[in-house]
Amino acid sequence: MKTPWEYRYAHRTQKMGSSVIRELLKFTEKPDIISFAGGLPAPEVFPLKEFQAACNIVLETQGAQALQYSTTEGYLPLREMIARHNSRFSVHVTADNIMITSGSQQALDFIGRLFINRGDYVVVESPTYLGALQAWNAYGAQYISVPVDEHGMIVDQLEEALRFGPKFIYVLPNFQNPSGCTLSLERRMQLVELADKYGVPIIEDDPYGQLRYEGEHIPSVATLDSRYRNEDCNDEYTGNVIYLSTFSKLLAPGLRLAWVIAPPQVIRKLVMTKQAADLHTSSFNQHVAYEVAKNGFLDEHVKVIRATYKERRDTMLEMMEEVFPSEVSWTKPQGGMFLWGMMPENVDAADVLKVAIERKVAFVPGAAFHANGGGANTMRINFSYSRPETIREGISRLGVTLKEALKNGKH
Amino acid sequence: MKTPWEYRYAHRTQKMGSSVIRELLKFTEKPDIISFAGGLPAPEVFPLKEFQAACNIVLETQGAQALQYSTTEGYLPLREMIARHNSRFSVHVTADNIMITSGSQQALDFIGRLFINRGDYVVVESPTYLGALQAWNAYGAQYISVPVDEHGMIVDQLEEALRFGPKFIYVLPNFQNPSGCTLSLERRMQLVELADKYGVPIIEDDPYGQLRYEGEHIPSVATLDSRYRNEDCNDEYTGNVIYLSTFSKLLAPGLRLAWVIAPPQVIRKLVMTKQAADLHTSSFNQHVAYEVAKNGFLDEHVKVIRATYKERRDTMLEMMEEVFPSEVSWTKPQGGMFLWGMMPENVDAADVLKVAIERKVAFVPGAAFHANGGGANTMRINFSYSRPETIREGISRLGVTLKEALKNGKH
Repeated sequence: MKTPWEYRYAHRTQKMGSSVIRELLKFTEKPDIISFAGGLPAPEVFPLKEFQAACNIVLETQGAQALQYSTTEGYLPLREMIARHNSRFSVHVTADNIMITSGSQQALDFIGRLFINRGDYVVVESPTYLGALQAWNAYGAQYISVPVDEHGMIVDQLEEALRFGPKFIYVLPNFQNPSGCTLSLERRMQLVELADKYGVPIIEDDPYGQLRYEGEHIPSVATLDSRYRNEDCNDEYTGNVIYLSTFSKLLAPGLRLAWVIAPPQVIRKLVMTKQAADLHTSSFNQHVAYEVAKNGFLDEHVKVIRATYKERRDTMLEMMEEVFPSEVSWTKPQGGMFLWGMMPENVDAADVLKVAIERKVAFVPGAAFHANGGGANTMRINFSYSRPETIREGISRLGVTLKEALKNGKH
Repeated sequence: MKTPWEYRYAHRTQKMGSSVIRELLKFTEKPDIISFAGGLPAPEVFPLKEFQAACNIVLETQGAQALQYSTTEGYLPLREMIARHNSRFSVHVTADNIMITSGSQQALDFIGRLFINRGDYVVVESPTYLGALQAWNAYGAQYISVPVDEHGMIVDQLEEALRFGPKFIYVLPNFQNPSGCTLSLERRMQLVELADKYGVPIIEDDPYGQLRYEGEHIPSVATLDSRYRNEDCNDEYTGNVIYLSTFSKLLAPGLRLAWVIAPPQVIRKLVMTKQAADLHTSSFNQHVAYEVAKNGFLDEHVKVIRATYKERRDTMLEMMEEVFPSEVSWTKPQGGMFLWGMMPENVDAADVLKVAIERKVAFVPGAAFHANGGGANTMRINFSYSRPETIREGISRLGVTLKEALKNGKH
């Protein structure tokens, strides 16, 4: 039966489509399917005991505050802790530069609200994070795509994009979702110089920065940008780069806790946006996360995550070497949760997925990660969620599927 | 120092102002001020032990699921429980009619995104909930105000408003925030008939429905509307009314857990909106709330809340009778958390507040709750948060302030 609501949707709702990834996840949720499709952390690394201890302490000693309404910007001790941590590993900030969000997705949404007028251009990598496209499509963004290779965004092609007057540049420099690639130091410096030359600010999305399994840590774009702008090249935050990160990969995504680092005047606007959007992020979860993390636990815990994911990545890479047909290539990420497969141009990953699901294995076709089309022959493969023995079995199934697909020619 | 972000705000950001209530709360957070300004539940009624037990059970038995990413619509057992509860006390629905949101504020925001084009009219009560105005201002809503008296919205004045072709009618029928008034059964029926006559749907916002301290429960607008539309007057949900409620007043606001009831096709659009906005509401909090509530605990717990708030309301009403000047009148709410004071027309509540704060007592001036101006002589007073002895002292201070204000004439 039709309700009167159907005739009353706003124009921005008309184009709304469900997430390709989410729709796919419905297929891949069946327990007999080995899914490399999601972007899930391994549940084995959730620090359950530490959470339990923290919940008990919070409810015994701070219950009245932790269960009450609280401030929109977030729990001050948590913001101060994030500021200290960020100042140690990246650019120097204070709690005034930080707002807590309900996951990084919310930060992306608020950035869209705050900065994107219908028709505005945004520079994105190709491929780029699908969630950002979903968030900004709602505000009528258009995209200028700059392709990514094994060293991240091909910055040589950025200057042309900047001449179109984009609102900002969106970049995932570390172990990018979906490609797994990392922006090299040299390209980061080039990016910073070009952004300065054209006066275009940068959104740096860094959910995986601490999940590095080999190679040297590269300074954040926010750090390099600030050094470039500060007369004596120091690390004081200058505000040209808005930086996003999250507890979803370090603690647990089910808490929905992330943060934005921005100039104080932007934080004030973000706070007003959040006030109208959901008042504040769960005070209970913020207290619990602070309690879990406050005595340096995360520094230890991240070592466990790194060891776990490194083994899974290595297992996957070894198996691929063994069973994937030679026409297929893939990235070798130095960290993060994903790698990226490339098939010959004439093979459509969506067709391959259908066969793969019959063989009880799944991945995400890469086309959806491209803002301006292309990438039909690519696929995103997650290595963080499945145990090594499952990875072996799943990649073996995928290998058979791929060989078949290539033999049958164009799908 | 100016950052490039300041020159890049979207048009919708320009008019953005901070919440009057939130700005005021900053003044009133000092511990020596007795604040009737906030809308806080009493921390004494937070079920801390039950929360603690639930956290422990969830982490011991469902940790991997409760800390992981989850579905956008919300935890199915929780949605099923809400559907059962709603079908028992109001209109009959299933889990397909329900989406979990991060507080009711998020539901209001999503409704704005989904239905409001810039310039669209919305019918609101005058006064109405400030958070709804904040949420919908961001989407360029305009308002047609229908005044409220002791029996709620004066429905006789609604028909004229409906002739302007509003997108929907927004109504808080039970112990309205801010006025404390309840829409009578007769007026609810009239509202339903008029809405049907003009084909305009209704948003029913009901955070306080279960917090009734005297009088008989009145059927929800959603129930009456469905009975009116169903041929045999049964209680099957027909979808003309979108209904909002929350755990913030029954369990704890710090969890940020609320729900929307809507037709399944609207729920699907809301799910897509939420996917782009914050992926999903904290899975951990949803598991914990379900664990606390599942064995009928809320039915018992709500009795404790009712007894606590009834005593506080009674104490406040008695004290007002005793110390408020005769020129001031106020509502006698049958439930909820607020009452509404009205001073002579020439007195400005904002001026009175300044003096009140010097006397270490606070309330919220009523003007902000009026979408189209007016109400400068009114004030919202919260009775749920302060203990009875604090209420006595606070109302006594406010009485002195008011007497002085009236003696000095126009402020």
